[in-house]
Amino acid sequence: MSTPKADAARATGASAPKRARTEAEEDQSKDYDADTQKALEDIDSCQNEIDGLNEKASEEILKVEQKYNKLRKPHFEQRNELIKKIPNFWVTAFVNHPQISAILDEEEEECLHYLTKVEVEEFDDIKSGYRIKFHFDENPFFGNDLLTKEFFLGSPEPTSTSTEIKWKEGMNLVHRMEEQEAKAGRKRGAPTGVRTFFTWFTDNTDASADDIAEVIKDDLWPNPLQYFLVPDVDIGEGENGLDGDEEGDSDEDDPEGGEGDFEEADEGDE
Amino acid sequence: MSTPKADAARATGASAPKRARTEAEEDQSKDYDADTQKALEDIDSCQNEIDGLNEKASEEILKVEQKYNKLRKPHFEQRNELIKKIPNFWVTAFVNHPQISAILDEEEEECLHYLTKVEVEEFDDIKSGYRIKFHFDENPFFGNDLLTKEFFLGSPEPTSTSTEIKWKEGMNLVHRMEEQEAKAGRKRGAPTGVRTFFTWFTDNTDASADDIAEVIKDDLWPNPLQYFLVPDVDIGEGENGLDGDEEGDSDEDDPEGGEGDFEEADEGDE
Repeated sequence: MSTPKADAARATGASAPKRARTEAEEDQSKDYDADTQKALEDIDSCQNEIDGLNEKASEEILKVEQKYNKLRKPHFEQRNELIKKIPNFWVTAFVNHPQISAILDEEEEECLHYLTKVEVEEFDDIKSGYRIKFHFDENPFFGNDLLTKEFFLGSPEPTSTSTEIKWKEGMNLVHRMEEQEAKAGRKRGAPTGVRTFFTWFTDNTDASADDIAEVIKDDLWPNPLQYFLVPDVDIGEGENGLDGDEEGDSDEDDPEGGEGDFEEADEGDE
Repeated sequence: MSTPKADAARATGASAPKRARTEAEEDQSKDYDADTQKALEDIDSCQNEIDGLNEKASEEILKVEQKYNKLRKPHFEQRNELIKKIPNFWVTAFVNHPQISAILDEEEEECLHYLTKVEVEEFDDIKSGYRIKFHFDENPFFGNDLLTKEFFLGSPEPTSTSTEIKWKEGMNLVHRMEEQEAKAGRKRGAPTGVRTFFTWFTDNTDASADDIAEVIKDDLWPNPLQYFLVPDVDIGEGENGLDGDEEGDSDEDDPEGGEGDFEEADEGDE
């Protein structure tokens, strides 16, 4: 998935045109006849006019996006306040989202029951990056109440940073994952190959094509309600995982007990 | 390569949110407690406000793009007039463009010496499509003076159409390609697998990811001068192909004879 706003800012190609022109032109200018040389210079002036318009267009589009980001902000904040009233809203939306659920480990789902608020904030100039903020209730897994992953899209390469997670004793889900893999024959500390939510969050080695971040920013965040409200057959399946019956250690500290709400929902075959 | 302007128009995700919400909500509304139900309805209203803002943002961005398309137009027209003064401008830019030259057959390069003007026009609403117009001088290959390939990006699937080429007797470059392949063991009429400029132009079976059209629209057209002016080592190599010495039938009707201009240019090792 691409990042449409960054594309929009680039839409008119304002940055590309200058490449190699000046140098190549100077090298070659002596090699054209006078008429051709004059025409090339005129084309160059003309191209400069076009480039100038491209830049102006990009700036205007950026301003429109900034204006609407501001206008949307209070609605996103209101939405977040409303979402807090709904038990397990975010973990449910995550579990129902095809790409995010694909990386959710069972224990991570338990942990995400404590996720109370998600925010996506673009940097002021939009093009240069964005951050995703995950707010957590007090929970048995880590001490942080806010985990932030930030993407810097500037040149030469996009980079990312993320909050160091203060795992509680024995609750480090990234290590647990590695241990499980070690049992299954993989060396501890070796790259797991398996991507989970928290390995995604902590891994900042390659920010250039972070599909999970883009899905959160461009698909989940614009409308999480649609993922919360998917047909409940999926929710039902997710729940067994969320309850963690197989693990036996999952219900120890569920602050909401809200999953039951969904158990009344079925496919209408009563 | 993506189509940035279409992305820009979609930038705020205005089209996505409605999916499945209403139906899912009605199915499930009876299954939530009253507080949750109320919160969900409030989130839905809030989401509607956000969706409305997204749509307004898309409209404003579209207007900016339309405004600048209009402002750019006279400069593109002026550029095209200037380009006509330069012998073999377009064929040279094509040959120097890595992705376009990759599909250019030698005989096609000869043919493209008659290409006098290229135009890219977006449809008025930008999102719904664009056309690429190739204007030709009278030439030994076909009778058309204008070949247009048009892309319709609307739902459900993008489609394309292109002008039927009125090949002159024995000059059908698409057939020649097939014959060459037949000699090499492939059945005539079978899909060639080899894509050339004119097989690209005539093939409208899959418009969904036309990389050549996108390269012309988003890379070559915004600034063809940079491709005309690349270091001449490539141009020199291309020229041998353009002159078609191996074929023996290529210089018969060269109206410009302009290639010689480039032969004086070298890598500066004199």
